[in-house]
Amino acid sequence: MATRSGTGGLALLQSGGMTQTPISRFPVPAREELPDDLAERFDAVEERAGFLPNIFAALAWRPDEARAFFAMHDAVMDKDTPGLSKADRELIVVATSAANDCLYCVVAHGAVARIRARDPYIADQVAVDWRKAPLSPRMHAVLTVATRLAADPAAVTAADLDVLTGHGLTQDDVWDVGMITSFFALSNRLAHFAALVPNAEFYSMGRTVREQ
Amino acid sequence: MATRSGTGGLALLQSGGMTQTPISRFPVPAREELPDDLAERFDAVEERAGFLPNIFAALAWRPDEARAFFAMHDAVMDKDTPGLSKADRELIVVATSAANDCLYCVVAHGAVARIRARDPYIADQVAVDWRKAPLSPRMHAVLTVATRLAADPAAVTAADLDVLTGHGLTQDDVWDVGMITSFFALSNRLAHFAALVPNAEFYSMGRTVREQ
Amino acid sequence: MATRSGTGGLALLQSGGMTQTPISRFPVPAREELPDDLAERFDAVEERAGFLPNIFAALAWRPDEARAFFAMHDAVMDKDTPGLSKADRELIVVATSAANDCLYCVVAHGAVARIRARDPYIADQVAVDWRKAPLSPRMHAVLTVATRLAADPAAVTAADLDVLTGHGLTQDDVWDVGMITSFFALSNRLAHFAALVPNAEFYSMGRTVREQ
Amino acid sequence: MATRSGTGGLALLQSGGMTQTPISRFPVPAREELPDDLAERFDAVEERAGFLPNIFAALAWRPDEARAFFAMHDAVMDKDTPGLSKADRELIVVATSAANDCLYCVVAHGAVARIRARDPYIADQVAVDWRKAPLSPRMHAVLTVATRLAADPAAVTAADLDVLTGHGLTQDDVWDVGMITSFFALSNRLAHFAALVPNAEFYSMGRTVREQ
Amino acid sequence: MATRSGTGGLALLQSGGMTQTPISRFPVPAREELPDDLAERFDAVEERAGFLPNIFAALAWRPDEARAFFAMHDAVMDKDTPGLSKADRELIVVATSAANDCLYCVVAHGAVARIRARDPYIADQVAVDWRKAPLSPRMHAVLTVATRLAADPAAVTAADLDVLTGHGLTQDDVWDVGMITSFFALSNRLAHFAALVPNAEFYSMGRTVREQ
Amino acid sequence: MATRSGTGGLALLQSGGMTQTPISRFPVPAREELPDDLAERFDAVEERAGFLPNIFAALAWRPDEARAFFAMHDAVMDKDTPGLSKADRELIVVATSAANDCLYCVVAHGAVARIRARDPYIADQVAVDWRKAPLSPRMHAVLTVATRLAADPAAVTAADLDVLTGHGLTQDDVWDVGMITSFFALSNRLAHFAALVPNAEFYSMGRTVREQ
Repeated sequence: MATRSGTGGLALLQSGGMTQTPISRFPVPAREELPDDLAERFDAVEERAGFLPNIFAALAWRPDEARAFFAMHDAVMDKDTPGLSKADRELIVVATSAANDCLYCVVAHGAVARIRARDPYIADQVAVDWRKAPLSPRMHAVLTVATRLAADPAAVTAADLDVLTGHGLTQDDVWDVGMITSFFALSNRLAHFAALVPNAEFYSMGRTVREQ
Repeated sequence: MATRSGTGGLALLQSGGMTQTPISRFPVPAREELPDDLAERFDAVEERAGFLPNIFAALAWRPDEARAFFAMHDAVMDKDTPGLSKADRELIVVATSAANDCLYCVVAHGAVARIRARDPYIADQVAVDWRKAPLSPRMHAVLTVATRLAADPAAVTAADLDVLTGHGLTQDDVWDVGMITSFFALSNRLAHFAALVPNAEFYSMGRTVREQ
Repeated sequence: MATRSGTGGLALLQSGGMTQTPISRFPVPAREELPDDLAERFDAVEERAGFLPNIFAALAWRPDEARAFFAMHDAVMDKDTPGLSKADRELIVVATSAANDCLYCVVAHGAVARIRARDPYIADQVAVDWRKAPLSPRMHAVLTVATRLAADPAAVTAADLDVLTGHGLTQDDVWDVGMITSFFALSNRLAHFAALVPNAEFYSMGRTVREQ
Repeated sequence: MATRSGTGGLALLQSGGMTQTPISRFPVPAREELPDDLAERFDAVEERAGFLPNIFAALAWRPDEARAFFAMHDAVMDKDTPGLSKADRELIVVATSAANDCLYCVVAHGAVARIRARDPYIADQVAVDWRKAPLSPRMHAVLTVATRLAADPAAVTAADLDVLTGHGLTQDDVWDVGMITSFFALSNRLAHFAALVPNAEFYSMGRTVREQ
Repeated sequence: MATRSGTGGLALLQSGGMTQTPISRFPVPAREELPDDLAERFDAVEERAGFLPNIFAALAWRPDEARAFFAMHDAVMDKDTPGLSKADRELIVVATSAANDCLYCVVAHGAVARIRARDPYIADQVAVDWRKAPLSPRMHAVLTVATRLAADPAAVTAADLDVLTGHGLTQDDVWDVGMITSFFALSNRLAHFAALVPNAEFYSMGRTVREQ
Repeated sequence: MATRSGTGGLALLQSGGMTQTPISRFPVPAREELPDDLAERFDAVEERAGFLPNIFAALAWRPDEARAFFAMHDAVMDKDTPGLSKADRELIVVATSAANDCLYCVVAHGAVARIRARDPYIADQVAVDWRKAPLSPRMHAVLTVATRLAADPAAVTAADLDVLTGHGLTQDDVWDVGMITSFFALSNRLAHFAALVPNAEFYSMGRTVREQ
């Protein structure tokens, strides 16, 4: 877990075998400098996960943007519908973030995807070659549209959305496919811009069957 | 200005010479159905601008996402710094949205850019070929980094950010370049996914010198 | 309108709010230096349009190429057939020139397209995202083939041409789609190479309904 | 050499080992149907070359465009300057046409390039991989700019043109680099659109040293 | 580990949490059907690794190609030089195979890279975004050239090779960079063509520090 | 034919009209320095062909890789089946090598293809624009899959392979399409990396009908 330096300094990742690299190119405030609402939220996340994902620390110097970012994230990711489970949502993140070569999002959301899907292989399979991954026809269609929206947004047509409805997604689910992909288009770019480093913990989470 | 149909129906654009097209592929709620905070915000925007930009109407069926979206927008766009004026911020939107072929963002933010920059030509110049547009070396560098982040995010390096600092941008300004570009990577994709239609008013705003 | 400097010098654009930029990277001869046939042609164009489009001035130092260029232009653009109206022809220019990021062609032919189509919105809609523009199925097919020929010419097949015939284009119309696209592949590149600047007048032409 | 069918029919290529394929997807008029000026021109070309290159036959059904096309061609190709010889001009055509996968232009102008350069290897070397072809630094710079203009015209900068001047090209030569590339952007697309077939004779011309 | 079906049938992957998928689209012979030299080699590999990597099983139906493939592999991968360690060689495989979206090569050679480099993070870092991975300047240069050769081979220049020599690689090391990249251009394509599935064991190998 | 310099020096191409260029960026050993098995093989090739193709000379400094390379080559190229003749195999090489801009492979295998197919035009037709080349539907399908595998390997699907079977290819033939393409993905990259120069003899082989 990251220990962060004092006032406005760059935080260094403290981690056994990993080179010490700052977690962001921008300032990472100490926890005690945070506005109360963010400090409370960060404490709660850390208690639940066992560590604070670096995206929280990296956004903290911009409290308004941090609040909006997490609100948008939760609105589309903390949902489980028959047409789009939590695991499915994580796999959209993995597939589109891999298309953008975003290490933080692939590693962090790959970990969550392995746990949500109770499958130690699926995250790597989707990150490297989702087209041949062992997915349902529904999820194959979802990732077809999501990766098209990520890479060539003008190419998405009304027919693409109809295909999703044909696989049983509701209008809300279809919107979620679009909004998750759009939100991680933002996240991937911000992570690249700030050179955001994934926490060491994410790499090995969910890699054995009994963990799940 | 858009008149919107009843409960959750698709709104049609009402506009002189333009084909009637729904403003979104998703439901557009009537104003009286909106939560109070959004209704108030929409009224205020409409009063100031003379019409309600369609992005507001199109996001309204998802109030939490609408709130987060506008909060993020305002945090990075409603700012005027020596290193990055409001007009400069609009031009980042125009250049990166044009790279994504996003009609709504190019037309709406192009209108704002013409007015902010008091220049009836600059939005089209930046949208079609920002590289030869009559910009300062500072803004040329800003758009070089922003369009790279938009199109090939993994290619942005620490050296790119240093170039911006070398042109007088503060660390906050540099982050803003990254966050504006990232936020409109989201907006462009959402607009394509929903087939968001620009209001007719935007096309001609700011096109004569005396308007400004 | 451009006033041009003396013998073989670079002409400067004289225009209210616009930075003075030479209209071309190559010499722009004074009107009195032109061969008689070109001078007459330029006078006629200027009288009809109210100003001389900069492409005329920029080509004038190469009289033989100028003559061939305008002859080719007129042969495919000054035509109105049931399958391909003058407005349709301008929209082919707008769509393919936008794919090539050519400011001069998008702005100048966008203006003509607005006027020919009596539609103040269509040029921007086609320039930024022709795929979602409110076009007839026939024109959607025409632009599908034209933009393919512009961007990836080896990918055009006999089946593409048959689709156009299926939409009612004659063999002559089909050829015109190909030749217009090919001719503006030339024009776009020449405009980029010479850094040709559009006349200020073009930007606002045809933007109000009553103008049409 | 092509023998052409009667009134407005498709001409078939008559050639030893080659499958009979129409030389164009569009009508090819018989010689006696041509306007006098074109017929005379075609006779002269055929007498000099020993056969009539198919581009002449394929354009003949559109006399005005044919005249403009050949006028433009001759204005930039029939020139020999210290900075840009006739062989150099042909190599610009070969390199940019190969980038566009244009069989007619690569084969026909490759043949002319071998003869003009008195080098049986250079056309294939430039067509397949001009970057490692045994060229002078001047011609390497010329092809760098020409292939950039062919493939990504907005990326050409004033600095690119200055590099050419630095290698001894005059302002006229620099323009010619741009115009030759632009003209063959037209030709390549027209050849693809019409599925123009090269004459069999071109394939083997200039392949032995003594021929030159 | 894979258990393979009888005579020339498709083998199924037997593995706890993973969907049963054939390891190849082509026949996988039973061990007893193999020529003696291959059977001995496979036994030795299996004894050393604890399981037989699926690439062996998938190539076995083509004994001559299998022999050549493994001979080429060993000639460039089983080497440890001051300029290019075994771990470095594996990272070339990971970076270039990731550029080709090859699941088998990224997962199998990622596992070997983690073990060789005694670093549980480096394989994912290099696979997803080698440009920001914590690598030495030497290895950054090596991967710059290797990924260029993988993706755009004509763009590699003599200067690229000189950069490698400048980082201390011998002429043999430089060749190895080229041959490893070229050999895995073959392997990646063959793995995609046969839909080769990685063994389940590879995913978790080398992911904890004490394993190393 | 190449004469090679002494111990480990760079060999120069000796050829009438061609600039003297080393045949490789890496050492080319003299014939008397070769291991006996390679020396015998090279003598046999030279006697049969009349000259030693430069790929042999360029690989000789790495005897193990040379042996594996030629073994793999012969396993997939020296075969003639009803579904995939020797000429067909050469055309796969020409089409995919042209997609990689590989001069050596296009020129050398183009020569062999002309001779095997007894067609002086087919190699250039396939190299420049295989999509419009006069090929059977079977070979058109083969090249569709092969060029896809060469350029975008993750895009090849099981359905692509089924198309080949539908054209009468056996399972062995289908594998050969994949392996030939994969092997020349290796060869093309190695040839670019070493800047391998084709022998002058290849350019004119098989260009007249009577030669065949």
